Amino acid sequence: MKNLLENNENLDPEDWEASKALMHKMVDDAFDYVKNVRDRKIWQNMPNEVLETFKTKLPKTPSSSASVYQELQDNVLPYPMGNIHPRFWAWYMGNGTISGVMGDFWASILNPNLGGGNHAAHKVEEQVINWIKEIIGFPETASGLLVSGGSMANYSGLTVARNVKAGYDIRAEGLKENNLVFYGSTEVHSCNTKAVELLGLGTKGLKKIKVNNDYTININALKQQIALDKANGLQPICVIGTSGTVNTGAIDNLNAIADICEKENLWFHVDGAIGAIAMLSNKVKPQLNGIQRANSVALDLHKWLHMPFEAGCVLIKDSYEHKNTFSLIPEYLEKNTRGLASGDNWFSEYGLQLSRRFRALKVWMSLKEHGSEKFGRMITKNVDQAYYLANLIEIHPDLELLAPVGMDIVCFRYNNGNNTLNELNAINKEIKLQIEERAIALPGYTTLNNIYCIRCAISSHRVTNADFDDLITHILSIGKAISK
Amino acid sequence: MKNLLENNENLDPEDWEASKALMHKMVDDAFDYVKNVRDRKIWQNMPNEVLETFKTKLPKTPSSSASVYQELQDNVLPYPMGNIHPRFWAWYMGNGTISGVMGDFWASILNPNLGGGNHAAHKVEEQVINWIKEIIGFPETASGLLVSGGSMANYSGLTVARNVKAGYDIRAEGLKENNLVFYGSTEVHSCNTKAVELLGLGTKGLKKIKVNNDYTININALKQQIALDKANGLQPICVIGTSGTVNTGAIDNLNAIADICEKENLWFHVDGAIGAIAMLSNKVKPQLNGIQRANSVALDLHKWLHMPFEAGCVLIKDSYEHKNTFSLIPEYLEKNTRGLASGDNWFSEYGLQLSRRFRALKVWMSLKEHGSEKFGRMITKNVDQAYYLANLIEIHPDLELLAPVGMDIVCFRYNNGNNTLNELNAINKEIKLQIEERAIALPGYTTLNNIYCIRCAISSHRVTNADFDDLITHILSIGKAISK
Ligand SMILES: Cc1ncc(COP(=O)(O)O)c(C=O)c1O
Ligand SMILES: Cc1ncc(COP(=O)(O)O)c(C=O)c1O
Repeated sequence: MKNLLENNENLDPEDWEASKALMHKMVDDAFDYVKNVRDRKIWQNMPNEVLETFKTKLPKTPSSSASVYQELQDNVLPYPMGNIHPRFWAWYMGNGTISGVMGDFWASILNPNLGGGNHAAHKVEEQVINWIKEIIGFPETASGLLVSGGSMANYSGLTVARNVKAGYDIRAEGLKENNLVFYGSTEVHSCNTKAVELLGLGTKGLKKIKVNNDYTININALKQQIALDKANGLQPICVIGTSGTVNTGAIDNLNAIADICEKENLWFHVDGAIGAIAMLSNKVKPQLNGIQRANSVALDLHKWLHMPFEAGCVLIKDSYEHKNTFSLIPEYLEKNTRGLASGDNWFSEYGLQLSRRFRALKVWMSLKEHGSEKFGRMITKNVDQAYYLANLIEIHPDLELLAPVGMDIVCFRYNNGNNTLNELNAINKEIKLQIEERAIALPGYTTLNNIYCIRCAISSHRVTNADFDDLITHILSIGKAISK
Repeated sequence: MKNLLENNENLDPEDWEASKALMHKMVDDAFDYVKNVRDRKIWQNMPNEVLETFKTKLPKTPSSSASVYQELQDNVLPYPMGNIHPRFWAWYMGNGTISGVMGDFWASILNPNLGGGNHAAHKVEEQVINWIKEIIGFPETASGLLVSGGSMANYSGLTVARNVKAGYDIRAEGLKENNLVFYGSTEVHSCNTKAVELLGLGTKGLKKIKVNNDYTININALKQQIALDKANGLQPICVIGTSGTVNTGAIDNLNAIADICEKENLWFHVDGAIGAIAMLSNKVKPQLNGIQRANSVALDLHKWLHMPFEAGCVLIKDSYEHKNTFSLIPEYLEKNTRGLASGDNWFSEYGLQLSRRFRALKVWMSLKEHGSEKFGRMITKNVDQAYYLANLIEIHPDLELLAPVGMDIVCFRYNNGNNTLNELNAINKEIKLQIEERAIALPGYTTLNNIYCIRCAISSHRVTNADFDDLITHILSIGKAISK
């Protein structure tokens, strides 16, 4: 084989300066896109001619990067999800931040694999996990992992719970009897059900306990169910407490759950996808008391910490059990005492993923730049806004609050007193859709006790009180127009 | 509550123009960092004073973004993993590309949640999955999902296999008998073992079949084991074929496995983390014949397609079964017929994750810019380079090839004939470490039949034949210096 025959192509830009210039333009456009987000439509339907462009076959031959960018500008940028807009209050998400974008940019440039190895990125993730332990009040000896999101964080915690509490070597032998039981409230997030199904326990492996009027788990019912299940030969292994339910933001009584778990020798897991990071807010922190007693906590940093997707985190108090659940080292990953392949505690030993993105960098850069106290104030601001909105609802006779305000979530409906339940459900669904289609705002929705609710999850760092004034004005006018 | 009391802070830059200017500087620095990667040390140890900086506590108060960037430059950038360097041939990874960086940048700016909803990002992911189906030869009716990597892609495929082939409603009821069996070769990637453990089957739920001399699965042994297991009351459910083993790049006989699976009514899964994307290379494609017959295929786009982390993909031929395994829709995610929350087939119904990053964009932009044929040529080039390196080894009396070249992976050692097995293992380990510590290159290593191998997995788009000439020169000189 001759060098002469060598193909010298690679995937780097042919002209680096031209590529830099294009990226400079992208940066200007992108920052303006974020800066002016309030002035653009929060959401709009894609026209057919745009939809058609997404049906073309695999591109075989090259196009200039400028023309690809043009396609992005024409066909993608005008039709966003809406969640970086200040008036997105639907599914629970963050807005993203410019410091997060910068961190993510460098993660893509450096492009290390956080599966393992002795390099700086690994140390950055270690540090970020230590900071999160500090925030939650977990000891230094605890372990943790950045994961794709809340679903994966809960999955990871519940997996360790299963393996530790089964009472036999489930990793080697598999599930022996099909009698392990997890508990959560009827408001527990669906991803926990999915996790329990994936773990092989079946939907029935997660028992849902009724809630109190404030949508927190009913502690007595929980105790009774555990006692009943034990009497029936089932094996209770774990209680999932939720700190911030997705429907109403309710925070379970974490200390009461911790007491039960201690007494019954159960694993205590907290689904803190929404609320755990609110430990940063002086206002919310007292409500979260007990979280530090959990065996595992799931957090989501792409929610109330506003990291660009994806960034979730799981903390496990017993690092030995954490590693024991996931560590599996094949020959080609065996460690050296020197060089790149040295170092303890590779992150791939603590989770499902082997290759892992440098998610930690955006968190590291953002926390350094803004400082944790500012993130705390942003959370407090959203909570204040939730009460501001609730107050607008309560003082108006045609509006009805449908659940206690939980942290930053407000559930309500238009109800002027002249309509049946079915009518009200239809009216409020239509109000919500019109608000959305007219691009006024993007409120969410849910159903509580068969009542359709307009649901505002206020996790935007860009939103102001005036946005809620405007929302209410529009809801009242649409409601009036379409109801009896 | 008065508006006067409102906290008007947010997380946006106070000075947008200053922020743009900083990002312009970052772009210039970052592109130069990639452009000049060959001239910097591929890897170096972190000094203690740098390690100390990663021990500071949670930053409570703000720092300027410029000073945070300075920390990144001082403490992170000089200590990379090495995998964007042309001479990184250790763990199997891609180099990353600038077009991938641009796509990832826009993904962070737009920051949509690919869990669901009717917005352009969703269409982009659909299109990318359609392209990957085209590449693999899967029908249009198949489904797929972009996931965090090969581990998650395999996990997803094996989960559907478990749920479909158990023969009862495992989602609802959980594992009834502990007798389901997966099969793979002794060279099957460890993430498949992890997946089977997580699924509740235990390590014993994945039986490892011996390999032929070329490290492909021994088809007769597979047949015998299946027959034996059935006779013993076990329930075979799935065979995992590997297209590109991590140790030697071996490709199992996929058609032979497909035949067995058809005959025995088993699920046929292909772990194509390394090799499946080589369907783009005219040179490798014929060896992959049979892959289109699989029920599920796992691919990794952050490997041989050079996407920045993370980007894996799973394809499932039966989209109904795929959705049936993962779909779970709580009230607050119920779909509307209009607006953002409309549209069929939300991606969260096809996997473990609910919130999902816009991973598809980098793939979409990169495939459009370079065209799939160029990616194919890059793969072919690496295969040619593997044979180039193998030839350098074979023509030298003091070097020994230890396995047939599999695609782009070469396993070999220094062996001048004067040393025992133990000595050779120690010598070659030391050679590999010195090559690494002197920052000459980053070869990998593995153990085959108790023999320590230097292992080069050549998946860089930046590498040239001359790099291997240089590697061999250094190996020979170090080998000579430290052996008898
Ligand atoms: C309470 C709760 N847990 C878990 C999740 C899942 O998190 P993710 O969407 O990041 O997977 C959510 C998402 O909204 C949630 O609200
Ligand atoms: C054959 C094979 N399968 C699966 C994986 C796991 O892929 P990932 O690291 O993306 O999780 C690898 C990683 O090297 C691999 O080589």
